[in-house]
Amino acid sequence: MDTRTGLPVVGMIGGGQLARMTHQAAIALGQSLRVLATDPDESAALVAAEVQLGRHTDLAALRDFAKACDVVTFDHEHVPGEHIRALAAEGHKVFPGADALHYAQDKHAMRQKLSELGAPVPRWAPLRTAAELVEFGLPAVVKTARGGYDGRGVFVVDDPAEISDLLASGADLIVEEKVTLRRELAVQVARSPYGQVAVYPVVETVQRDGICVEVLAPAPDLSDDAALEAQQLAIRIAHELGVVGMLAVELFETPDGLVINELAMRPHNSGHWTIEGARTSQFEQHLRAVLDYPMGETSLAAPAVAMVNVLGGPEGGIGVDERVHHLMAAEPGVKVHLYGKQTRPGRKIGHVTALGADLADCRARAARAAHWLTYGKAMG
Amino acid sequence: MDTRTGLPVVGMIGGGQLARMTHQAAIALGQSLRVLATDPDESAALVAAEVQLGRHTDLAALRDFAKACDVVTFDHEHVPGEHIRALAAEGHKVFPGADALHYAQDKHAMRQKLSELGAPVPRWAPLRTAAELVEFGLPAVVKTARGGYDGRGVFVVDDPAEISDLLASGADLIVEEKVTLRRELAVQVARSPYGQVAVYPVVETVQRDGICVEVLAPAPDLSDDAALEAQQLAIRIAHELGVVGMLAVELFETPDGLVINELAMRPHNSGHWTIEGARTSQFEQHLRAVLDYPMGETSLAAPAVAMVNVLGGPEGGIGVDERVHHLMAAEPGVKVHLYGKQTRPGRKIGHVTALGADLADCRARAARAAHWLTYGKAMG
Repeated sequence: MDTRTGLPVVGMIGGGQLARMTHQAAIALGQSLRVLATDPDESAALVAAEVQLGRHTDLAALRDFAKACDVVTFDHEHVPGEHIRALAAEGHKVFPGADALHYAQDKHAMRQKLSELGAPVPRWAPLRTAAELVEFGLPAVVKTARGGYDGRGVFVVDDPAEISDLLASGADLIVEEKVTLRRELAVQVARSPYGQVAVYPVVETVQRDGICVEVLAPAPDLSDDAALEAQQLAIRIAHELGVVGMLAVELFETPDGLVINELAMRPHNSGHWTIEGARTSQFEQHLRAVLDYPMGETSLAAPAVAMVNVLGGPEGGIGVDERVHHLMAAEPGVKVHLYGKQTRPGRKIGHVTALGADLADCRARAARAAHWLTYGKAMG
Repeated sequence: MDTRTGLPVVGMIGGGQLARMTHQAAIALGQSLRVLATDPDESAALVAAEVQLGRHTDLAALRDFAKACDVVTFDHEHVPGEHIRALAAEGHKVFPGADALHYAQDKHAMRQKLSELGAPVPRWAPLRTAAELVEFGLPAVVKTARGGYDGRGVFVVDDPAEISDLLASGADLIVEEKVTLRRELAVQVARSPYGQVAVYPVVETVQRDGICVEVLAPAPDLSDDAALEAQQLAIRIAHELGVVGMLAVELFETPDGLVINELAMRPHNSGHWTIEGARTSQFEQHLRAVLDYPMGETSLAAPAVAMVNVLGGPEGGIGVDERVHHLMAAEPGVKVHLYGKQTRPGRKIGHVTALGADLADCRARAARAAHWLTYGKAMG
């Protein structure tokens, strides 16, 4: 408890853009997010008042950090489970807990658990050898159980030779069928220790090179039945896995229905649209959930919302400040979120959100705005 | 310019809730607000990464502060004009400038200037003696030219004897007619150095004991003609006074039309509804304006918005964290803003905002939510 305010202190391990945006939400609730960052120039460390430098793999640093927090949560999923268990054993509240987070850290464990629950997943198998891969059937998708994000650790394979090094590495691998993809969807749900859940409208996510580039809320042309199914599935997974905080369930829409692609247990890129697009942002909702506060309303703030990621563009051109100028002049209604990160080609450096009555119009406005930030010139 | 991000550094003199909420807006724009606070426990100092301790009356502190900023602006209007002029003379960008801010610092100068501009004001006169007061006509409203806010420095006078001490003090005073008040309105406008203006919908403000307690957006039952008149008036004043940043024009609606009550040159309590209720919040708009960025859209984000201030209540009762719990359980759609301030009876410690289709419903929800925070129990 912060004795100056009488309000709780939430600590977030990791100083990226998720912590940065969670700090914004914490400020409204009378709080100040405590951030464990590895570098003083990290996204959240640039803007938060309470920053501790330290690595998420260093148990001593984690212990020191947790001491000043009422609840500890995560900006990313890379904190070792044994460290989380050690903190919990010492009486710290850490959400999501190690048992739940395991399923977001390890794709093999996630597929196993979801299969046990009877949740819809692509056909899959553990993978050790080239022979198993051939037996499974090619082409197929091979994934490393750990360490992948934004498309890393995912390989579409036509021939076992393509991944011979990976197979020889001893890494824990799984293989999945290459599903016939109509599109990708995502659904966010928050769950508190008390067990209250709050689910958001289902969104469509558009990926390019394995990176989410666009999110449309609500997912256009999705039947009420399919939306309800996705929401109920997310609630069930949050409950069965004992998630506390935000859970993002990434889904494939296939000709045979929905199957689960990935799980993330934290605020997630597919939920950035909620900052302006929903009555309660995923960042505020995550804080509410880990604090065991009652959940906030998840309804849409506008009929249509489009979120477009801003990726770093080619080097050169006008500076970022001038890009912001042009964007604001061209699109005065688009909401800008810049993460304070150095630009690198393809790196997520921000996002923009457009709200309105018409989705096509929102998409066009957000795309034009993002283009200014990425390329420093109007869309061609 | 922040060399880490390539984005400008705005500094705000004063560490109150306006700076706190401006920091939230700065974060989205990729920035981090630099705050000059007098105390490390001030509202904005609790949450901002870049805090310098120092007094707004200390020119050396101001100089030191301005050195690290691209633009300097204000959380309050108490910085001496000669200090602002000194900073500007040394090449610092300070917005609003001393000449404009003078009219928000000095009610006598403000009345004089507005009268010269032919803007509608109550009948008024400079006041030095009891005889002048009797000659002006009683009852009347006597105001100190400087130092008043939230109803302080304003006296409704029936008999000169009531203010004999004030008259003897030598303070610069003005006297105004006690207008027949239908209600109070306010209109926010932003103006950039380039001269671009952006005006918000006119709102109704409800005062109690001289303190704003409720804001309704848009002002209910206001004719389009009256709304346009108020907006045009605000734009004209911003232009004529050379305001840069947000200008709040507080108005009296009388049987004879609108008259101007007060001016504030900064984000203002009557504009807190814009955080969720307008496409661009007054805090982001203030940053855009002082940075000479293009202005953001000012349209409403919902048909009806009600903002209710949270004042400190009687001592005792449940703690603030538990109050937040109850409020969130009772009103999951109401947006909470707590300023991290110690509670004191009557002190503004936060505000709540409700959005929706129906104003009466929004008012009721916001009032119930604020009541939980002030009194720690449900509305009676």
